[in-house]
Amino acid sequence: MTHKPDSYEHNMVLAQKQFRVLGTRPIRHDGVDKVTGRALYGADIDLSGLIHGAILRSPHAHARIVSIDTSAAEAMEGVLAVVTAADLGDSGDKMIDLGEGEQNLSFLRGNVLASGKALYKGHAVAGVAAASLHVAQEAVKRIRVEWEPLPAVTTTQQAMADGAPVLHDGLRTKELGKETDQTGNVAAHFRYDKGSPDEGFAQADVIVERSFDTATVHQGYIEPQNATALWNNDGRLQIWTSTQGSFVVRDTTAAILDIPVSQVKVTPMEIGGGFGGKIPVYLEPVAALLSKKTGRPVKLVMSRQDVFEATGPTPGSHIRVKMGATNDGRIVAAEAWMAYEAGAYPESFVVPGAMCVFACYDIDNIRVDGFDVVVNKPSTAAYRAPGATNAAFAAESVVDEIAEKLGVDPLDLRLKNAAKEGTRRADGVKFPRIGLVEVLEAMKAHPHYQTPLEGPHRGRGVAVGFWFNVGLESSCSISVNSDGTISLVEGSTDIGGTRTSIAMQAAEVLGISAEEVRPSVADTDSVGYTSVTGGSRVTFATGWAAHNAAQDVVAQMKERAAILWGVDAGAVEFADGTFRSGDNSLAFKELAKKLSETGGPVTGRATVHPKGVGGSFAGNIVDVEVDPETAKTKILRFTAFQDAGKAIHPSYVEGQMQGGSVQGIGWGLNEEYFMTDQGVMANSTLLDYRMPTALDLPMIDTCIIEVANPGHPFGVRGVGEASIVPPPGALANAIHNATGVRMSRLPMSPPRLMEAIWALESNPIAAD
Amino acid sequence: MTHKPDSYEHNMVLAQKQFRVLGTRPIRHDGVDKVTGRALYGADIDLSGLIHGAILRSPHAHARIVSIDTSAAEAMEGVLAVVTAADLGDSGDKMIDLGEGEQNLSFLRGNVLASGKALYKGHAVAGVAAASLHVAQEAVKRIRVEWEPLPAVTTTQQAMADGAPVLHDGLRTKELGKETDQTGNVAAHFRYDKGSPDEGFAQADVIVERSFDTATVHQGYIEPQNATALWNNDGRLQIWTSTQGSFVVRDTTAAILDIPVSQVKVTPMEIGGGFGGKIPVYLEPVAALLSKKTGRPVKLVMSRQDVFEATGPTPGSHIRVKMGATNDGRIVAAEAWMAYEAGAYPESFVVPGAMCVFACYDIDNIRVDGFDVVVNKPSTAAYRAPGATNAAFAAESVVDEIAEKLGVDPLDLRLKNAAKEGTRRADGVKFPRIGLVEVLEAMKAHPHYQTPLEGPHRGRGVAVGFWFNVGLESSCSISVNSDGTISLVEGSTDIGGTRTSIAMQAAEVLGISAEEVRPSVADTDSVGYTSVTGGSRVTFATGWAAHNAAQDVVAQMKERAAILWGVDAGAVEFADGTFRSGDNSLAFKELAKKLSETGGPVTGRATVHPKGVGGSFAGNIVDVEVDPETAKTKILRFTAFQDAGKAIHPSYVEGQMQGGSVQGIGWGLNEEYFMTDQGVMANSTLLDYRMPTALDLPMIDTCIIEVANPGHPFGVRGVGEASIVPPPGALANAIHNATGVRMSRLPMSPPRLMEAIWALESNPIAAD
Repeated sequence: MTHKPDSYEHNMVLAQKQFRVLGTRPIRHDGVDKVTGRALYGADIDLSGLIHGAILRSPHAHARIVSIDTSAAEAMEGVLAVVTAADLGDSGDKMIDLGEGEQNLSFLRGNVLASGKALYKGHAVAGVAAASLHVAQEAVKRIRVEWEPLPAVTTTQQAMADGAPVLHDGLRTKELGKETDQTGNVAAHFRYDKGSPDEGFAQADVIVERSFDTATVHQGYIEPQNATALWNNDGRLQIWTSTQGSFVVRDTTAAILDIPVSQVKVTPMEIGGGFGGKIPVYLEPVAALLSKKTGRPVKLVMSRQDVFEATGPTPGSHIRVKMGATNDGRIVAAEAWMAYEAGAYPESFVVPGAMCVFACYDIDNIRVDGFDVVVNKPSTAAYRAPGATNAAFAAESVVDEIAEKLGVDPLDLRLKNAAKEGTRRADGVKFPRIGLVEVLEAMKAHPHYQTPLEGPHRGRGVAVGFWFNVGLESSCSISVNSDGTISLVEGSTDIGGTRTSIAMQAAEVLGISAEEVRPSVADTDSVGYTSVTGGSRVTFATGWAAHNAAQDVVAQMKERAAILWGVDAGAVEFADGTFRSGDNSLAFKELAKKLSETGGPVTGRATVHPKGVGGSFAGNIVDVEVDPETAKTKILRFTAFQDAGKAIHPSYVEGQMQGGSVQGIGWGLNEEYFMTDQGVMANSTLLDYRMPTALDLPMIDTCIIEVANPGHPFGVRGVGEASIVPPPGALANAIHNATGVRMSRLPMSPPRLMEAIWALESNPIAAD
Repeated sequence: MTHKPDSYEHNMVLAQKQFRVLGTRPIRHDGVDKVTGRALYGADIDLSGLIHGAILRSPHAHARIVSIDTSAAEAMEGVLAVVTAADLGDSGDKMIDLGEGEQNLSFLRGNVLASGKALYKGHAVAGVAAASLHVAQEAVKRIRVEWEPLPAVTTTQQAMADGAPVLHDGLRTKELGKETDQTGNVAAHFRYDKGSPDEGFAQADVIVERSFDTATVHQGYIEPQNATALWNNDGRLQIWTSTQGSFVVRDTTAAILDIPVSQVKVTPMEIGGGFGGKIPVYLEPVAALLSKKTGRPVKLVMSRQDVFEATGPTPGSHIRVKMGATNDGRIVAAEAWMAYEAGAYPESFVVPGAMCVFACYDIDNIRVDGFDVVVNKPSTAAYRAPGATNAAFAAESVVDEIAEKLGVDPLDLRLKNAAKEGTRRADGVKFPRIGLVEVLEAMKAHPHYQTPLEGPHRGRGVAVGFWFNVGLESSCSISVNSDGTISLVEGSTDIGGTRTSIAMQAAEVLGISAEEVRPSVADTDSVGYTSVTGGSRVTFATGWAAHNAAQDVVAQMKERAAILWGVDAGAVEFADGTFRSGDNSLAFKELAKKLSETGGPVTGRATVHPKGVGGSFAGNIVDVEVDPETAKTKILRFTAFQDAGKAIHPSYVEGQMQGGSVQGIGWGLNEEYFMTDQGVMANSTLLDYRMPTALDLPMIDTCIIEVANPGHPFGVRGVGEASIVPPPGALANAIHNATGVRMSRLPMSPPRLMEAIWALESNPIAAD
């Protein structure tokens, strides 16, 4: 359902406009290909002369590489090339900027092929190319590495402890933005300060302070990472890969290989899920080096174990949250101490975690300390609102406990303290028009919340969460066909139906249907620079580029109509898909037929780097039943709410809300990297890494709240991420409501919850 | 060599500008892929589930199809579908316009799959798709067609004779532009009139009137026609093919299949030659229908015999030319009667032949009668300056004979009568600035002409020729990379190095090198409408689009520089690759790095439908030696001259001149469709169809004459075609000079020349 808040007409500037296309639910353009198996994913690529690669990976979580002997592998029949970190050259202290701040080149390269040390189990050490995959895999086993194993650290607590093994000898802690001489595993410590937390807590009648731990979890996309590379004789490198950002792959690979970006062409294949995990490059530079050595196209595809052990999961974390409120329900102070695991290389996502931890609340006094900590696990990557879910689990648990202590409805407490337009976040950003109040009002008014939950061992929980979304850069071009349809070229790989949500925005401008737009996702040679598909930015930013490119088309077609009518182009108006001047009128399709005779074809183009990013708020109401015998948590009912801004394609907004909720549920209840003492993931299969399946879940009901983003021509906010933020917190609160236990550790899996229930039963006071 | 005419500085507006990129000879961007075998041509495509097709072709030159029984073929194991004309539906009298005038849909469809009658040997009758090519080929043999053979006509004389067999019952002659009730094989008769030919001939002191015949010849591209089609479940049709025009294939196939153009996506593969022959569609609709029936991608590839018998050769013709001159060398009147073979369906290329026949001369009194005649041969297609070579052979032979009779140098006669700016052609067009005088002056001044030819059986001939070139429509888009290179997307398939000649024009505007442009030829979904690669238009028109798209980039980058410098965009100038305002300056590459920070990426776009097309004149000097025993003509020396306008990439201009010359030599000396009485081509292999090889030819020397086209920003004229026009005429004149024989029939092959020499020896007066 779509909830229209009472204040909707006031706030939703664009709601007063009746859209013809936006808000409808056309069939996605790539749908048939995807349901019939015709769509080509990364591993589907085949090229003349293709050979196959395999990767040697570290068996140790932390070990020095004393020597590598590749001779036996190279001597194998069918082996065509072997590469190691030596083929990447010396990075020195070189810093590079790929558009989102400086990065250390040696870290980028080191994660692709380990240099000097392996920093996690599964860390790539060498690559082999051979005529067949089986030969390549066998050859990998014949590479002799002399290892010097070192003690490993796999949590922030271990890594920050005095005398802990150090991953990077040269890593100096950046303290409050400044370089220091301090070494160790803390890459950075930063602080957000707002008001005076001490004074705030002094005013508080109720203070709750709790510590929380969250496990490393993986995005769990279905399609493993893959890369096929052809380093051509003319020096040009072509890459085919499944990625969230073809230009990111281009620019990162070029940096790692030290070649100009224009020497690299990346063709994005269809992508079987990413969620943030398919932004870094892992295989592309190795495939490229193997191709350079062999002159052949080389394909590398990960196994599921590789995906778990050697791509970027999201950080585990240790968080301490303290909040204080007055008896009238006003939250007056908040503090958070947040340490996130970066994995083997900086950075973790503690910065966005810190930006989001208290972002839902209008609190005068806040202090947040953030710590970016390297540990002997795979280098972390983004995962849907990265960093925010860990933080919201902590903050929303504490808010719930405050509500309980104050005896007020948890939604009322949140409404009373809700961030709104003008609220300044801990990181200093002042909110523009946002929709949290409307989300909370929709939650309170929803039949789910209005229906009492009855029965033993059952409980209801609520939580909210925030994600700021990003803008970055997008390009789009449009050409008008003689039959009045348009072809649209964009650079955003389509993960969640964005071909359609972008096409709809062009269609809306031009007064044609979504089906009359033919969207294509182009390679990096064939479209303007477009940043990653991530940060909930594609429908927002690339859609905006489509809007602008369509406007560019309209402007040119006005000139054509003016030629036909012998009037000035300024005298031609365009509305509702029709060009008009005086008594003359021509529909878009009619004028499209006359382009050849009025000067030739019409194409439009636009690039955007938008500033008006609108954050999105999500909320959950969840009812659970906890089996008293097994502590298995069964979800009885789950309703997801989200402020989408204008919902361009409601089905895909709902899909994002449902998908994010399910991932949040998995994170909350079951998923975790189960690490052995040796720093080895003990459950690196989808059988043992317990993601929720359809059988584990009820229907995820959705409620879209449309509070227009004033910073976008159609009011779009971006909806891909916020939905993953509240579920663990909402589940923790529901479990508390059902069992009396406040869980402080994710996942809240049956063994862990059982232990907590037993602990509460044996000592009810201590557990509170 | 490049000849700079004396008047060059006056006429060549742009010559005063020193170009940085234009006029240089960078390595072509597609070169490495093409010489290493990496480039993918049409037949290289492979798709998951691909099946193969074969075509049943008519064994008769003219026969009624009484019935077709496909049951035995369909019953074969492995056969998945059979299609015939019945699958194309009834076309009725529907006329369609694909951008170059109305065409009869039934003719378009009929040439793809014969309906009712087969009109030439090789005419496609049915298509079969099967799991393997061998099964498909075997199944074709099992299709039972009941034929009723009809008498065939294979020359215009036969087809225009009283009581001739009629190909199309409903074909009514269009007489001087008007529909008539007259039926037969003459599709159209038109006339160009200028001045009063009767009065002109009355003034003439010398009149020469001769008849000429030219044989059907084939373009002889190396790569046979091919098409792979996938008619997807969502109704979209994808085609991969080697073509001169992806949008032409799209639009033609859509018309034949009666689906919207936007339902068809054509991906142009690399093309192994076209020369005009790869503009029509033959296989694409059949592959599409087979794919629709099977749900599988279907590939069809022609054999060499198919290429000869069932694609479009250039028309054979019968031409009568009469010219009169006064004793002082002024040509005062000219008449031509031209009948061209259209092949099985109208139209032949008699219209451009008529436009060109006297275009080299400034003659006050002209009459040209043109006849478009259907015959039982494959439907003709364009071949490099289509129609003009036949015409020039006739006209240049007559001009040579007039010079001989007047006792003047043949170049002087041509110079005296040369068309120039302001000359009005027979078809009414007034020439803008053209370069024929400069070409003739260069020929006269050339060492080749200045060096006497000595020895027995040797002779020298000269001739000139004209081609008007075309403009049509082109699109181009550009995106600026952060390393200061650009990616350029165009819709013109690259036959002769146009990726580079287009890229150079963008590079010239932007002040970067040709190598810093990365050109891509896109599919029809990914670039604006672009007309065919033909008519010598690509470097002219698509290059112009590239020029304009680069200007669009410059305009936007001025705004970015203005942001950086805090000045008005109007105050920023761009010259020599550098943006400047006051003391500020940034090179293009430097500013390219700063686009992200100043508003995001920059892309440019342009479409053109240019009017300022500049015609091109070509001239040849050729020395031959005719073996008195065998009448084999050996070419001793051959120099090709051409007015290229600005030669963007001189190597490719020279390549076009050499290639066109060689094709004209083959046409003049050896190539012909040798037709049996039954209308069957008796020499449908490259062994028997005698194209010149490197061993048959001397080095073709070239001399580029640059008379700028004032209608193009860089003065480009287009160079692909004119070079094929003069060779047969020049060779005929050289043979006459060597032997005394005036050949009136092409090819001037040894048997035919031997007979002519014997005839001359037995009756010297009659032969004159």
